[in-house]
Amino acid sequence: MSLKPLADRVLVKPDAAEQKTASGLYIASNAQEKPQRGTVVAVGEGKRAENGERIPVDVKAGDVVIYGKFGGNEIKVDGEDYLLMRADDIYAVVE
Amino acid sequence: MSLKPLADRVLVKPDAAEQKTASGLYIASNAQEKPQRGTVVAVGEGKRAENGERIPVDVKAGDVVIYGKFGGNEIKVDGEDYLLMRADDIYAVVE
Amino acid sequence: MSLKPLADRVLVKPDAAEQKTASGLYIASNAQEKPQRGTVVAVGEGKRAENGERIPVDVKAGDVVIYGKFGGNEIKVDGEDYLLMRADDIYAVVE
Amino acid sequence: MSLKPLADRVLVKPDAAEQKTASGLYIASNAQEKPQRGTVVAVGEGKRAENGERIPVDVKAGDVVIYGKFGGNEIKVDGEDYLLMRADDIYAVVE
Amino acid sequence: MSLKPLADRVLVKPDAAEQKTASGLYIASNAQEKPQRGTVVAVGEGKRAENGERIPVDVKAGDVVIYGKFGGNEIKVDGEDYLLMRADDIYAVVE
Amino acid sequence: MSLKPLADRVLVKPDAAEQKTASGLYIASNAQEKPQRGTVVAVGEGKRAENGERIPVDVKAGDVVIYGKFGGNEIKVDGEDYLLMRADDIYAVVE
Amino acid sequence: MSLKPLADRVLVKPDAAEQKTASGLYIASNAQEKPQRGTVVAVGEGKRAENGERIPVDVKAGDVVIYGKFGGNEIKVDGEDYLLMRADDIYAVVE
Repeated sequence: MSLKPLADRVLVKPDAAEQKTASGLYIASNAQEKPQRGTVVAVGEGKRAENGERIPVDVKAGDVVIYGKFGGNEIKVDGEDYLLMRADDIYAVVE
Repeated sequence: MSLKPLADRVLVKPDAAEQKTASGLYIASNAQEKPQRGTVVAVGEGKRAENGERIPVDVKAGDVVIYGKFGGNEIKVDGEDYLLMRADDIYAVVE
Repeated sequence: MSLKPLADRVLVKPDAAEQKTASGLYIASNAQEKPQRGTVVAVGEGKRAENGERIPVDVKAGDVVIYGKFGGNEIKVDGEDYLLMRADDIYAVVE
Repeated sequence: MSLKPLADRVLVKPDAAEQKTASGLYIASNAQEKPQRGTVVAVGEGKRAENGERIPVDVKAGDVVIYGKFGGNEIKVDGEDYLLMRADDIYAVVE
Repeated sequence: MSLKPLADRVLVKPDAAEQKTASGLYIASNAQEKPQRGTVVAVGEGKRAENGERIPVDVKAGDVVIYGKFGGNEIKVDGEDYLLMRADDIYAVVE
Repeated sequence: MSLKPLADRVLVKPDAAEQKTASGLYIASNAQEKPQRGTVVAVGEGKRAENGERIPVDVKAGDVVIYGKFGGNEIKVDGEDYLLMRADDIYAVVE
Repeated sequence: MSLKPLADRVLVKPDAAEQKTASGLYIASNAQEKPQRGTVVAVGEGKRAENGERIPVDVKAGDVVIYGKFGGNEIKVDGEDYLLMRADDIYAVVE
């Protein structure tokens, strides 16, 4: 079973709570709005511009991304936690 | 008797309350805004863009969808409960 | 005497208070914002798009429609109560 | 002496307080926002669209109109009370 | 010394406090937002539309205008009081 | 050392506190929002319109300008106070 | 490891706390919203205009910039503090 996000929505699998990773990324714990890290699982086809064409989403499945703490809705699929968020709530891709 | 939604509105039949389904989707109960699940019954022709043409809606009748908890108006048709919501309040399609 | 709504406004004759009709439509009484039912009496020519052309309204006189509770202004014509609302405040047509 | 409204503004002479007219129009007194009735005295040339052209106003001098209670500014010209409002604050024309 | 308003801004010399003029215009004192009267002294070149071209302002120096009470910033030039406001805050021209 | 404002931002050197100048300009002290006076030091290249082209800024270095009291951010460069504001927060040029 | 900002987002390395630099820039401590100083580390490809094309960002890696105090999200990469902000939150480039 899977979810297909609509328009500019993105399905993200959040990282586990240990946020100090081997790659050295660490998300500050004292920021006003703490960004989070996760992996993109599925991406919508993009929202439609005024001319009716779709604006493609800037991330793809497999990307490791940084996103805002309040930028998504929690959802559980097959017992695992995911987040559904808008593409604009994703700040950056980890490379 | 039936309802024909207008513009970008969608008529959705919400799932019954048992949200742990055979397919394994489970909607988290501790999220700030809990997404819900239901089945699309009818779809509007799409709202009009600035140039007057209609922007088609991304879901169709029969789609199983995830939507926001506060994204619709309850309505009873022939004794059954439905929700009338805007297409943008639908987050994803279950496949 | 009659009223000609302007732009995207619609004149609606609300149903009488008995909302359980023969056709089986019943409007839920416990919704956060309860939709209402009525019949379209007159429709404006549509609001103008950015290019100056009019965007036609999606309903016509005679349509039975569902609309939001707070989406209109009450007005009495020849002793009868009507509502003047914007076309976008109409959610669906009953067929 | 006279006033020439600018852009999409309209000068309206409100009806006297007796609102039950011969034509049978009566404005409900228990509505949340009570619409009012008056006669258009002068109309602006229309506001400019994004392309610089003017969008004509939907009413003309002499039209009897229904408008929102809070949709205008009172002004006295030659001892008589008028209202200056935006064209969009006018809901309908009485025919 | 003089001021050149920018974009869609207009410099207005407000009438003296005696608002009952020879021409018979009198501004109501019990309105929620009382319009005011004054004379246009200088006008900006107009704000730029999306295509970069300027949208000309609907008033010119010398026009006697009606404007909203809260639609401007007071400024003193050579000992006299003026108002700097946006063109859209001017409701009508007195003719 | 110098600052290059971005997009539609403008760097302004505010006048000293004595606001009654030789040229006779005096800024009213009882206005709700008191405009201020200063000299433009540097100007951005303009923000981009929807078509991607830049909209030029209406002031240039050396212009003496009137601006809103709350329209900028204070910044100190080489020990002197400046304001960084958006071009739209500048009301007029003193000539 | 590195971060690639998305759309109009910019990754900035804030200056150390000693804000009185050799170059003489000093950020006022009594402003309502205190601008800050830092160095651009990475820049997104620009957000998309209505026509789908990207609007390039006005700063590049290596630029020393002034930005608003509340205009970003703190993030730690390889033990160092960075800010992820929108390009529009950057006021000026230090030259």
